Amino acid sequence: MASAPDTTSIPGYTIFREGDYDSVAATAMLPQGVPHPLDQLTIREIPDAAKIVRDHASPRTVKFNCITLREPRKAEYQAFRAGKTAAPDRRAFAIIIERETQQVAEVVVNLKTKKVEEWKAVKNVMPTLTLEDLDVMERIAREDARVIRACAEIGITDMSKVFLDAWAIGIDERWGFERRLQQGLAYYRASEFDNQYAHPLDFSVVADTETEEVLSVDVRTVNGERVPVPLKEHNYLPEFIGDGYIHDRLKPIDITQPQGVSFKVRGNELSWANYKMHIGFNYREGIVISDVRSHDMYEDRERTLFNRISVVEMVVPYGCPEKPHHKKHAFDVGEYGTGLMTNSLKLGCDCKGAIHYMDGVMSTSNGEAAVIKNAICIHEEDNGLLYKHTDYRDGTVISARDRKLIISQIITAANYEYGFYHTFTLDGTYKLEMKLTGMLNTYSLHETEQAAPYGTQVAPQITAHNHQHIFSPPDAVSADHAVGSPENPYGNAFLSKKTPLRTSLEGAADYCYETQRSWDIINPNRMNPIAKKPIGYKILNNNCPPLLAKPGSTVYNRAGFARKPLWITPYKDYELFPAGDYVCQSTGEENHPHNSTIVDWAKRNENIENTDIVCYLQFGLTHFPRTEDFPIMPAEPVSIMLRASNFYEKNPGLWVPPSAICVDTQSTNAFSSSCCAANAPVSSSRL
Amino acid sequence: MASAPDTTSIPGYTIFREGDYDSVAATAMLPQGVPHPLDQLTIREIPDAAKIVRDHASPRTVKFNCITLREPRKAEYQAFRAGKTAAPDRRAFAIIIERETQQVAEVVVNLKTKKVEEWKAVKNVMPTLTLEDLDVMERIAREDARVIRACAEIGITDMSKVFLDAWAIGIDERWGFERRLQQGLAYYRASEFDNQYAHPLDFSVVADTETEEVLSVDVRTVNGERVPVPLKEHNYLPEFIGDGYIHDRLKPIDITQPQGVSFKVRGNELSWANYKMHIGFNYREGIVISDVRSHDMYEDRERTLFNRISVVEMVVPYGCPEKPHHKKHAFDVGEYGTGLMTNSLKLGCDCKGAIHYMDGVMSTSNGEAAVIKNAICIHEEDNGLLYKHTDYRDGTVISARDRKLIISQIITAANYEYGFYHTFTLDGTYKLEMKLTGMLNTYSLHETEQAAPYGTQVAPQITAHNHQHIFSPPDAVSADHAVGSPENPYGNAFLSKKTPLRTSLEGAADYCYETQRSWDIINPNRMNPIAKKPIGYKILNNNCPPLLAKPGSTVYNRAGFARKPLWITPYKDYELFPAGDYVCQSTGEENHPHNSTIVDWAKRNENIENTDIVCYLQFGLTHFPRTEDFPIMPAEPVSIMLRASNFYEKNPGLWVPPSAICVDTQSTNAFSSSCCAANAPVSSSRL
Repeated sequence: MASAPDTTSIPGYTIFREGDYDSVAATAMLPQGVPHPLDQLTIREIPDAAKIVRDHASPRTVKFNCITLREPRKAEYQAFRAGKTAAPDRRAFAIIIERETQQVAEVVVNLKTKKVEEWKAVKNVMPTLTLEDLDVMERIAREDARVIRACAEIGITDMSKVFLDAWAIGIDERWGFERRLQQGLAYYRASEFDNQYAHPLDFSVVADTETEEVLSVDVRTVNGERVPVPLKEHNYLPEFIGDGYIHDRLKPIDITQPQGVSFKVRGNELSWANYKMHIGFNYREGIVISDVRSHDMYEDRERTLFNRISVVEMVVPYGCPEKPHHKKHAFDVGEYGTGLMTNSLKLGCDCKGAIHYMDGVMSTSNGEAAVIKNAICIHEEDNGLLYKHTDYRDGTVISARDRKLIISQIITAANYEYGFYHTFTLDGTYKLEMKLTGMLNTYSLHETEQAAPYGTQVAPQITAHNHQHIFSPPDAVSADHAVGSPENPYGNAFLSKKTPLRTSLEGAADYCYETQRSWDIINPNRMNPIAKKPIGYKILNNNCPPLLAKPGSTVYNRAGFARKPLWITPYKDYELFPAGDYVCQSTGEENHPHNSTIVDWAKRNENIENTDIVCYLQFGLTHFPRTEDFPIMPAEPVSIMLRASNFYEKNPGLWVPPSAICVDTQSTNAFSSSCCAANAPVSSSRL
Repeated sequence: MASAPDTTSIPGYTIFREGDYDSVAATAMLPQGVPHPLDQLTIREIPDAAKIVRDHASPRTVKFNCITLREPRKAEYQAFRAGKTAAPDRRAFAIIIERETQQVAEVVVNLKTKKVEEWKAVKNVMPTLTLEDLDVMERIAREDARVIRACAEIGITDMSKVFLDAWAIGIDERWGFERRLQQGLAYYRASEFDNQYAHPLDFSVVADTETEEVLSVDVRTVNGERVPVPLKEHNYLPEFIGDGYIHDRLKPIDITQPQGVSFKVRGNELSWANYKMHIGFNYREGIVISDVRSHDMYEDRERTLFNRISVVEMVVPYGCPEKPHHKKHAFDVGEYGTGLMTNSLKLGCDCKGAIHYMDGVMSTSNGEAAVIKNAICIHEEDNGLLYKHTDYRDGTVISARDRKLIISQIITAANYEYGFYHTFTLDGTYKLEMKLTGMLNTYSLHETEQAAPYGTQVAPQITAHNHQHIFSPPDAVSADHAVGSPENPYGNAFLSKKTPLRTSLEGAADYCYETQRSWDIINPNRMNPIAKKPIGYKILNNNCPPLLAKPGSTVYNRAGFARKPLWITPYKDYELFPAGDYVCQSTGEENHPHNSTIVDWAKRNENIENTDIVCYLQFGLTHFPRTEDFPIMPAEPVSIMLRASNFYEKNPGLWVPPSAICVDTQSTNAFSSSCCAANAPVSSSRL
């Protein structure tokens, strides 16, 4: 399956080259009209930006690491939203690597003026490894004499059966920022579609991404012996399961919306129920939900709930202390880009019901536009009871059904898959649910070794190590905001639960089970007139596993954000990624001039009270592998919620027509009445 | 709305009297064939049992508190299930109150021999308050001179507008077990369907249930003044919302199963996917799920997962220390009976999709059968991804969708509603989700009073107090059991997570957030041959709020079970209810001869290692009322999970045909392939 590299052919991507823009596919993907300031770059804007950057750099040549939207500064956006100014100029942000010098630079391009506005060289950092970058490993390793010898020693001579999953390198003291490193975890496949994770090999490879050199082949031995390949097959694809499927046991469930969906999409702006929001997407964070507003039926005005919601980082530290496993702690956002790894979704498989898809637009190393068709799924689901009450005296019943709006994406991070489900419900709640599935990262065991205590033997000779998944979504929160009122600036909010957190150091908060600690994001400038408490949203996070790596460990240093379930910082434009803008090969060094982290931001110890804040909420789970997780993992959910807390005057769902109204004044015999009028707003007997 | 008492007319119930048994309704409700030993008593068995009890008691006369199935002893049931013996004789269990003496007795009736097998007088206990019992309060209070005067003093003269929610009494030192007490919380309604919880009155009433006497009218004054009735209306019913509904904003979602449901029901035995189980129901616990088995596709045999699952107790302590609120801590299972309070469900309102309903059969105080039609809802739901993996190299995709089986009931406990959703999924997980909705318990505020810190002002003059909801489902667990193998006795299981819990005192365990404590229920006699760890199920409970009432408080004493998130005791027949068999007016006294609690059981400090155990899992939430919870609460979910942990050899869902298989060897352009074959088991390109 190895083939010559083609940097503009990436599975799942549609690449647009010069001259392609008038094709049917391109036309379908070009937005109509003027883009919204938060819209992704279009398939025309990306090559335009690339050309401006290339012209500016000439005669130096550049490799594009990313070309993505430069979001407007918040003040600019606010002025636009308030109707005070025209849309800010569209800008692109690029990270480039100069091909001649390997120098990394950050470039801001004004797409209107067609000018480079900023060009900033950044040192001692390594940008995200793109899919193109990661494609290097398998190709060069298969041809490397040391790899071929390492395989031959354990009886593998057909190199087309050797596969290498390319990972960012967690740590390797042998090289620094002079090399753009990646590591390869080696596997064997007995046949084309065989599950390689059943056949882990006992060596790993370090390569230089830019020079395409294998730097080291690290072979592990036990008592001086190589570890044999586990050859037993453990497969999950249809050609292997075949007769194992039971086809008539589950009958189909059909979910339809004969009158269409309840949400409206105009460009990338979405309205649904009482909500309005903008849906963005980029190579690094994937889905970005901005400017989330709600129409308050009691105050009859639009109120801002959240400025910006995305998953800005995640880390998966593995718990096995033996080499080479100490290098495994994937930062799937910062090191690989959740946008880049996004699946193109399929109706009935990934999502069910009436679906609206949006595409993801990214760039290639050559500066071409690369589109993932159907990267974002938007759909509604029934969500059971919104409310119900029965008067036990006479059987009077009222109930209404809740509804979910789900904005989702699924990514493949080598072996693992993650589903991201951003969910809004009619009671004003936002929930981020992650679903973890795909393949365990596996390793081979020598006959003298045991999987315990750092892993579980999921099949003979195969261990899967204990690990954690810690996700970090930030919420830029404006507890209240009247659009266009300069005297009440956007996002006047602080966080309090009896003990107010006043500075960003206090805002680095620990969870306390014994007191059932929770946090309210409140606006002290605006009291709920009824409750006489500040309006707010409550953070409900029961799933915040402590980082189990010890202080001083590599992952503790690199994943500073994962040390606390909550960090709060005052909002600053373009201060976003808590593990640093550059996560690959990062060390967690404090006060890095080009790569500050949330640990640095908190240490500034700035005021977070009654100002515009960003909350970084960590959540996740600790995964002790089970035999049930092999050969493919059942999806495991984990979630976090933000729930209105004295934000509205009353239940915000009372506008939803009830699905059941039952008045049964004649009889107390439930058999004699048919009092449920499904979907009927009001039964005639009640009006 | 007050009417003369008719003890055989209860809203939502169908009562069968002598001579009714040949009616159409009765025929529809009489099971065909021989009942399963765990089936509810039938509408014929209940009056049969009543007659046997009455004849035995004569000339004394009896009031029936309950007539319910006496489940067979476990050994008897096991022998029957193993095919070694015939079905054990059907037996009824009744709690009766002798009308002449108020003496309480427990009676066991053999329905085959038509004999009373046990008649045990029990002292210093009070049985559950039935709906018939609670009906007393409003009727007698409205006619009581002290109540009429208390109302007149605050300007209410039309007593038909005064409503009293009858509650069990949390504590009242003025009376002991010589009186069967209940308390009435008073409200006003301006019109027939007005929301009374917007008009709480400032007095409460204590009554004797048996003598139907008002014992005390406790009027609260603030600075010597009565508290005016909050008269502002806050309504949620259609006649009040009217034009407030927005009818076209949410389009219908239709969920259908054109080929029918995937589960099969034979009597009360259900099979679905790989699961088999029995669905029971009784007046106290509501749904009881027994004998849950799974067909293990790898071992090709049936394995027992859980012996018996139900919610055996819950407590709702309120946090306001002022009288009369210290009396509010409802035990909704033991004091009222979740079976008795069950709603008759309606398609499209309570449940959506293709539904199978089961009825609940209870008894009246006269010994008649009382049926709640559609008490239990059984349906399937799509559950998103079961698993997915994409090979990033070539875009090969496989995914399958998960499915839920949900067995649910909804109860009305005066102001509150609870939904109980027992859920099984294809990965072997059991989840109990509770949804809390209905009405806040409210109280009026004097103009000099503030709601804080013990409550929230949810509307002017109206406070809703902080409270907790703590649920206690026990799982009688048999970690593994080969049916009919006497050498491997049912339920050989103990609980361990590195630190084995060996005795029931050790089994009263605290949660520890810092170490992410969880518990595995394991069988040390049976190792998973792959993982080399004992087979087990993991308890996932992140929602176990500590009981916030102080040690020594009334509720701490009465709700001993709520002091710990987990208790484990060795299985004993008929030892089931952790707050005691008799919860009304209980004091939590230890070593009560007729009313032992889980605190007593744990103190026996018996072995729980490698024996047949019962796990009591406490979970719930702490509710600080919000303005959004008024005038009717949006449903709030809280759940607990039991997940297979090295119980199966591999992913137990691999028999599920995939919904997506995508192989795209020709092209890396996602646009050119249509590789999702929804519901097609295998795409032709892969075989």
